[in-house]
Amino acid sequence: MNKEKKTILILGAGLSSSSLIRYLLSNAIIYDWRILVVDQDIEQVKKRIGGHPNGEALSFNAMNSKERRPCISRADLVISMLPAKFHVEVAKDCIDLRVNLITPSYISKEMRELHGEAEKAGITIMNEIGVDPGIDHMSAMKIIDSIRSMGGTVKSFKSFCGGLIAPESDNNPWHYKFTWNPRNVILAGQGGAASFIQHGEYKSIPYGRLFERLDQIEVAGYGNFEGYPNRDSLVYRDTYGLQNIPTLYRGTLRRPNYCKGFSVFAELGMTEDGYVMFESERLTPRSFLNTFLPYEKGLSIEEKFKKFLRQERMYLYEQFEWLGIFENDESFGMANSSPAQLLEKLLVRKLSLAPEDKDMLVMYHEVDYELNGQMKRITSSMVNIGEDQLYTAMSNTVGLPVAMCAKLLLLGKLQEKGVTLPITREIYEPILDELKTFNINFQEADYLIEV
Amino acid sequence: MNKEKKTILILGAGLSSSSLIRYLLSNAIIYDWRILVVDQDIEQVKKRIGGHPNGEALSFNAMNSKERRPCISRADLVISMLPAKFHVEVAKDCIDLRVNLITPSYISKEMRELHGEAEKAGITIMNEIGVDPGIDHMSAMKIIDSIRSMGGTVKSFKSFCGGLIAPESDNNPWHYKFTWNPRNVILAGQGGAASFIQHGEYKSIPYGRLFERLDQIEVAGYGNFEGYPNRDSLVYRDTYGLQNIPTLYRGTLRRPNYCKGFSVFAELGMTEDGYVMFESERLTPRSFLNTFLPYEKGLSIEEKFKKFLRQERMYLYEQFEWLGIFENDESFGMANSSPAQLLEKLLVRKLSLAPEDKDMLVMYHEVDYELNGQMKRITSSMVNIGEDQLYTAMSNTVGLPVAMCAKLLLLGKLQEKGVTLPITREIYEPILDELKTFNINFQEADYLIEV
Repeated sequence: MNKEKKTILILGAGLSSSSLIRYLLSNAIIYDWRILVVDQDIEQVKKRIGGHPNGEALSFNAMNSKERRPCISRADLVISMLPAKFHVEVAKDCIDLRVNLITPSYISKEMRELHGEAEKAGITIMNEIGVDPGIDHMSAMKIIDSIRSMGGTVKSFKSFCGGLIAPESDNNPWHYKFTWNPRNVILAGQGGAASFIQHGEYKSIPYGRLFERLDQIEVAGYGNFEGYPNRDSLVYRDTYGLQNIPTLYRGTLRRPNYCKGFSVFAELGMTEDGYVMFESERLTPRSFLNTFLPYEKGLSIEEKFKKFLRQERMYLYEQFEWLGIFENDESFGMANSSPAQLLEKLLVRKLSLAPEDKDMLVMYHEVDYELNGQMKRITSSMVNIGEDQLYTAMSNTVGLPVAMCAKLLLLGKLQEKGVTLPITREIYEPILDELKTFNINFQEADYLIEV
Repeated sequence: MNKEKKTILILGAGLSSSSLIRYLLSNAIIYDWRILVVDQDIEQVKKRIGGHPNGEALSFNAMNSKERRPCISRADLVISMLPAKFHVEVAKDCIDLRVNLITPSYISKEMRELHGEAEKAGITIMNEIGVDPGIDHMSAMKIIDSIRSMGGTVKSFKSFCGGLIAPESDNNPWHYKFTWNPRNVILAGQGGAASFIQHGEYKSIPYGRLFERLDQIEVAGYGNFEGYPNRDSLVYRDTYGLQNIPTLYRGTLRRPNYCKGFSVFAELGMTEDGYVMFESERLTPRSFLNTFLPYEKGLSIEEKFKKFLRQERMYLYEQFEWLGIFENDESFGMANSSPAQLLEKLLVRKLSLAPEDKDMLVMYHEVDYELNGQMKRITSSMVNIGEDQLYTAMSNTVGLPVAMCAKLLLLGKLQEKGVTLPITREIYEPILDELKTFNINFQEADYLIEV
């Protein structure tokens, strides 16, 4: 092997790796890179590489340290697209073998604890460099740093992101299709309350009320969205250096009526995953729904459901009817299933991407700051539409920052060592700039506001 | 030691053992029993035994097999009042040493699996023989067996039980005081939906709606109660031999307005135990409440809380005010606490038993059955008032059935071997009869109903 050639090892060739691999291969000849891609599904890997001369398809179990270590020792850089729980083990190998590592996943406590060892080994372990987390951090820090450099003080930081269906493929009353793992969408927000700070007051919202307190957001050219709270926002005070900020809130974006509708599932108990329903294989959509409605003599299931909705949200009735929740023809046929698993089956039938559908990734920041005694607001929005079902907005916005970070590391442009996040100018400036050429671009506005 | 003397070993001398120990000691001379009582707190044991010549106070860690085995080998019968998770280990010792065992706790899967071994060892392991579970099973099976012996068919079985405050000690707007572990009361119903069957339809109620669908119950001479669903009722179809019953429901009893009020805590998210609140040591009742209320400029916390209650349940406002939830003078001072832990502290301040208070145990069954083409209903209710803070209704109703079962076993009156429950005539008849002498007595009515 050419000593000058740099070797990039990619662990995992699933859907989220497509754009990442395309970018690296299309830059491989210019920069003299060798790209090793590993997946247990060798056909998948070959399809991704498409016979590129600088690519090499490998098949082994990358979750097994013994199998992956010889391959890591050949590499100058590892990119782990494995399930998040495996990153720490990969990181330990990378520290031993002094090889840089990139992952798009949330940094774990165990990963953080490797900081000293990674620094000592002289390597960079970059985490949270996909879209959410990833592009959100980079675009947020760009705004926050610009306010600081003007001498301003950030008073309120709100940030929203959502994986949605593109307007041209939006043909259902939920204005939603699954563009990502449906199970994660159904379970979103469960396990721990959503926490944030608002005008100096700490706020906690339990799961059952998550889809009630919604923010209304308009993105020019793309219409209206609603945001519901996204887990623990408070940790971002440290990440972004906003320790004393009175308002900090992160949310998930959906189209109007999705949250109000999903709230009905949550309220009924249909999103619960902690127990198995009795004889679940025999349930139809109709009997599944009826399990969660009170018994009332003489009332049909439709009537009981209307009573549950109450007059003020009767406008949602049609979107439930469209989903087929009153159908009784066919049972789910799923034994030993939780309500959440049956709900997933019900929704996936109607809310999956068709082959010609395109997805959409929307991000929106709203940052209020004080400058020279005046209150001002910066809004910043990014909308990206997918190319097709392989190069989706989701895979582009996750994979391209990872790939660009790989390029920066191999070119020696990133000096920071240890376990880190993409929150410094050194990393966010070049990546946000290059993302623009892929139409991943933020529209900013900056204006005075009344307090 | 006299060879004829029978030895009873009681593991655990906590509050729930007081009535049990008193009963056994007061029968010890007649039946020639020796009563060994073990607890890590030797003073507690000595107080319980009160110098009785047939009692022996022991102090060791009964949760440790090595420490308890020599003691079990001395015994003819073991009564485990330890925390439920230790029962299986004690049962294994009892099987090895061929000693009978009684526990008042719910039978676990692991305990059930010991049935064959216990049978082979020729011993009886009696479980669920306190009050709920315990007296509920015995009184229910007595009704069900009597209907069967008349040739009737049970069509609906509803059963309720509650540990409450006696009417003479009821002096607060919640009509409730903690007569049992407050933490268990606060967490009741969390972890898995409540499941039951109603007119042939399976029903599941998620935690967030648990305190909404209430049954109204009147007990002659004791006024009105409300029942909310108690976990998985469906398992009782097998226990009671009611596999094809169209309606089976078990509930927990409270006085009116308790459930409606507690529902507000659950809806707000104040009963959650899965996360720690930020700087919880600094929270006062007022700031704790405000964490769960939406931010609204210009509205006081009282106004926001009223808005949350909505007009239709504004009658509850006073009972929250009485609890002191708007107080801001003193912080809880509890670091790293969950909402449920802080709520417990808030409630315990105001809802604890005073030294002169008495508790009350209420049980109510409503069983509908068909006989000779007619629909009939049996109602059966039991109310027991505690003697004082030591011999409470709770400790009497839990401990006396355990003690009476011990007597039956030592007298050779129970033939059933293996891991079992108190659902056969052999056990429920003598125990329900003897309980009457302790004023634990069911009032029954049997009448025609319209369908």
